[in-house]
Amino acid sequence: MNELPPQIQNQLAQLQQIQQQAQALLQQKSQLEMVLRETERALEELKKTGDDAVVYKAAGELLIKAKKDEVLKELEEKKDSFDVRLKSLARQEERIQARFTQLQDQLKAALGKGPSGKAAS
Amino acid sequence: MNELPPQIQNQLAQLQQIQQQAQALLQQKSQLEMVLRETERALEELKKTGDDAVVYKAAGELLIKAKKDEVLKELEEKKDSFDVRLKSLARQEERIQARFTQLQDQLKAALGKGPSGKAAS
Amino acid sequence: MNELPPQIQNQLAQLQQIQQQAQALLQQKSQLEMVLRETERALEELKKTGDDAVVYKAAGELLIKAKKDEVLKELEEKKDSFDVRLKSLARQEERIQARFTQLQDQLKAALGKGPSGKAAS
Amino acid sequence: MNELPPQIQNQLAQLQQIQQQAQALLQQKSQLEMVLRETERALEELKKTGDDAVVYKAAGELLIKAKKDEVLKELEEKKDSFDVRLKSLARQEERIQARFTQLQDQLKAALGKGPSGKAAS
Repeated sequence: MNELPPQIQNQLAQLQQIQQQAQALLQQKSQLEMVLRETERALEELKKTGDDAVVYKAAGELLIKAKKDEVLKELEEKKDSFDVRLKSLARQEERIQARFTQLQDQLKAALGKGPSGKAAS
Repeated sequence: MNELPPQIQNQLAQLQQIQQQAQALLQQKSQLEMVLRETERALEELKKTGDDAVVYKAAGELLIKAKKDEVLKELEEKKDSFDVRLKSLARQEERIQARFTQLQDQLKAALGKGPSGKAAS
Repeated sequence: MNELPPQIQNQLAQLQQIQQQAQALLQQKSQLEMVLRETERALEELKKTGDDAVVYKAAGELLIKAKKDEVLKELEEKKDSFDVRLKSLARQEERIQARFTQLQDQLKAALGKGPSGKAAS
Repeated sequence: MNELPPQIQNQLAQLQQIQQQAQALLQQKSQLEMVLRETERALEELKKTGDDAVVYKAAGELLIKAKKDEVLKELEEKKDSFDVRLKSLARQEERIQARFTQLQDQLKAALGKGPSGKAAS
């Protein structure tokens, strides 16, 4: 990379940084999607039960008896907050993707013009 | 690989792709076998209990009291669907294995005839 | 590294060793922080419940019914012991960080004086 | 390695194979030790409870109510079988360690005599 012009080196570094951000974002998203799926499954099972259902909630190494309606409310709130955070992550992803494409185009143009013979070698 | 004839390069690429498919399949299969074993173990334990057994079912962070006969039916259905999917994966595995052997034979034949001295170097 | 003076080689080896210690420490710390967070969450949930709360405690593959006040006491003791160990790890971390900075400065000074031309090449 | 005499190449290959066996054994052992510790912890907790203790046993995604004395017996049997397997693994480990030392000594002797100048280069 020593032989590339400084501007192009800079753009390559930015591209790499953005790729790392995109990867971190993807990881966060897939983790969040997993807990969302789990919450939805718990909600689904809970809704199938009668009003007198006996329900326990895990907390660390404990299981604590809980009231169905309270757990239901809690899970609904959790689900909503996960949905909000997932939408926010999706927006961030779009922005990063757009910035990536933009940088890639700039880089292609700069390399295409190729003022420095070394860049193409 | 630049020096290999295009046809052989193509076959090598196909072999690699098939190896990746085989690996992905194997991973799916071993995951499915694990959940199948867990389901079978739960069924086994459940069948040992009396009809009045007290049973809870995990759903995310919740444990919900369930009726033995309903859980039994649910687990049997799960087990059946896992069995079906495992058989389907086994068939896919066979097909991939056959395709792999076929490609390998073609490749050996092509490299054996060796029209290009470079392939053997 | 063969061309570096023995003293500098020795300092580099010490730096590497300290970095490994710092990494091992960080890992221990983040594991401990995780179990601490889990314990705090369990405590929090437990404190929300009434005195007649029904609580089970996990032990391996078992769940054993427990008395709320006993579990509460147990968790408080666990939390305290985690806090103590975390503080001890934080002190170790500081010591290692200080030693790292000291070695780094010595190394910079030694390389700056550079009696051997090879070190700078 | 092409330049080493065949006998030494063979011994090196055996050494590598034994190292792999030792590693696999170590992994098995540490997994077994983990489940043993968990079983012992469950036993310990169970023994602290009164005879009328309410106990559930995990089986896949289910928790099934169990009788204390039956669970106790089951866990004791598990613990015994883990102990037996651990002792067997320890014996295997000793045998592998002895074989490793033996091969290493043979190799050192063969390399020390060094009939081929290439081995020492």
